[in-house]
Amino acid sequence: MRAAIFRGVFDIQVEQIPDATILEPTDAVVRITHASICGTDLWPYRGQGPYQPGWQIGHEWMGIIEDIGSEVQSIKPGDRVIASYDFCDGTCEFCQKGLDSACLQGGLWGYGNEGGQAEAIRARFADATLVALPSSVEADEALLKAILPLTDNMAAGHHAAVSAAVRPGAVVVIIGDGAVGLCGILAAHRLGAERIIILGHQAQRLALARQFGATDVVTSRGEQTLPEVIEMTGGGADAVLECVGSEEAINMAVNMTRPGGTVGFVGAPHGSGQIPLGRMFSSNIGLRGGLAPARAYLPELLGEVLAGRLDPSPILDVTVSLAEVASGYAAMDQRHATKVMVRP
Amino acid sequence: MRAAIFRGVFDIQVEQIPDATILEPTDAVVRITHASICGTDLWPYRGQGPYQPGWQIGHEWMGIIEDIGSEVQSIKPGDRVIASYDFCDGTCEFCQKGLDSACLQGGLWGYGNEGGQAEAIRARFADATLVALPSSVEADEALLKAILPLTDNMAAGHHAAVSAAVRPGAVVVIIGDGAVGLCGILAAHRLGAERIIILGHQAQRLALARQFGATDVVTSRGEQTLPEVIEMTGGGADAVLECVGSEEAINMAVNMTRPGGTVGFVGAPHGSGQIPLGRMFSSNIGLRGGLAPARAYLPELLGEVLAGRLDPSPILDVTVSLAEVASGYAAMDQRHATKVMVRP
Repeated sequence: MRAAIFRGVFDIQVEQIPDATILEPTDAVVRITHASICGTDLWPYRGQGPYQPGWQIGHEWMGIIEDIGSEVQSIKPGDRVIASYDFCDGTCEFCQKGLDSACLQGGLWGYGNEGGQAEAIRARFADATLVALPSSVEADEALLKAILPLTDNMAAGHHAAVSAAVRPGAVVVIIGDGAVGLCGILAAHRLGAERIIILGHQAQRLALARQFGATDVVTSRGEQTLPEVIEMTGGGADAVLECVGSEEAINMAVNMTRPGGTVGFVGAPHGSGQIPLGRMFSSNIGLRGGLAPARAYLPELLGEVLAGRLDPSPILDVTVSLAEVASGYAAMDQRHATKVMVRP
Repeated sequence: MRAAIFRGVFDIQVEQIPDATILEPTDAVVRITHASICGTDLWPYRGQGPYQPGWQIGHEWMGIIEDIGSEVQSIKPGDRVIASYDFCDGTCEFCQKGLDSACLQGGLWGYGNEGGQAEAIRARFADATLVALPSSVEADEALLKAILPLTDNMAAGHHAAVSAAVRPGAVVVIIGDGAVGLCGILAAHRLGAERIIILGHQAQRLALARQFGATDVVTSRGEQTLPEVIEMTGGGADAVLECVGSEEAINMAVNMTRPGGTVGFVGAPHGSGQIPLGRMFSSNIGLRGGLAPARAYLPELLGEVLAGRLDPSPILDVTVSLAEVASGYAAMDQRHATKVMVRP
């Protein structure tokens, strides 16, 4: 079968690799129909982080079951399934608590495991990891495209909003106009936020932000941004969704939060970082978030998409075939695309 | 009247100052019967932080109403009242949300305002700031001593436990064996924690910790402590109460927290600090807390003390008169006392 392989910086190749097969009785083999490129796939592409040449890449995918192991009970060949970006056993302490991203036997697709930008994949812990979709979705390509972001970005945006405790009537600031930030708008809107202020710079993304429910757009840069948001909000937002991951963005998020409010952070920081603990202390500002428990969120968010109340599909603004996947990386790297869908 | 005045490093003087009087119609004058010295009073005493010579000191106090302003409605002369360490207007956005420590017109006793280590005090916003005690407490000195820590330390310990989301059955670590850490044990125990691990070094305090409900004591130092707690808890505690306030303690707290858990921090850090954001992200560890909304907690905690279910009085292990207050500071500074009660 063919799969996208990371070969080095700015070098994604589609190569022939051994067919996906059942290795464990809890496995399933899924023929991938839809995948996508994540902003985090750009990190190794740009030479950031320890991604090894030869590893498969891609952690956002869905498809049709081709084969199942002897212990798999909840799905059968022919079913359409979606996975979250993380696989999980469904039985450990953390899975039971709804924190599949901390599963004791879990991991991420790619990163030395099977990857999702491929013709097929061995899905580990199929009963726990995969969610079957109703057969009614099959003919509805627009609906399938709306479901695909639940694998990762929409779960992350939702996690930011949940972590920041967005409640009806809340004033929310969203830092970052990438796919996750845009999904954060949808999540905050859905949770009843009254005012949603997006910080960003790209006209096309900000137009989409408005379409998704943003009420205000802040395009200033640098030291201007904080006082502008403080003034707009009369002293800070109830909830700030930090969807960038830099130390600078987390600092700005804390400084934009109203006393008693919370920063929900889903951008991925590395190592340790300097944050304004004094302000967190004096104003009781909380910081929480992290790797989204995307599998735990899947049933709820899928229900919303199927009911027509949630549609993140506009973040997928470019589509490529698997053969063209390298051009998808280039388009995202050069910001010609917000997010690229891959059709193997 | 006489009052404790900060005159400089290691120099607390009892001096004659003008009598407390009504200045605003919302004021009350309270004759102070009980006060105490807070660990944070030791900061200026030791030369840390910007405390100006000539300022009154002391923010933990209770007493008897002597006079009230024309607009005060909820209390009358002769009532026994308790205040929290912070005064507040009771009407602003944050007071209404239960976050009196962020009151728009609020502040701390001392710090350039009226101080509580004194014979009397002008209590600002008396209706909002003061809580009247039932007359039945008057003859019960042990009960009054149990109520006094609600002004600050017990509220802080409770805030740490609430911020760390301590729930029935939780495994809790408490960093710091000072008065606040000890009150954190009482709070965690009361909220149903199953296991309470205290980190500390002083035998007398650790004995009190056990009396308050600690199930385990960790006395190791430096780099030994983290692996010891990780092993004891099988991977970290559900909730860690950080009652020290140093960057080192906050880092240790994050590193001792189980995935999905929360650090409640009530030690007071200054400025910004380096914290392990990468671990917070990968393991979804939250950080929240700060200046306790002590006034908001007062009714609940007072009810517990009056019902005999909560008694933090053993933290007050030394009592001095107002004239002897300087010796109380010295005793706490030299760790001969955990916490000193002052009887003006």
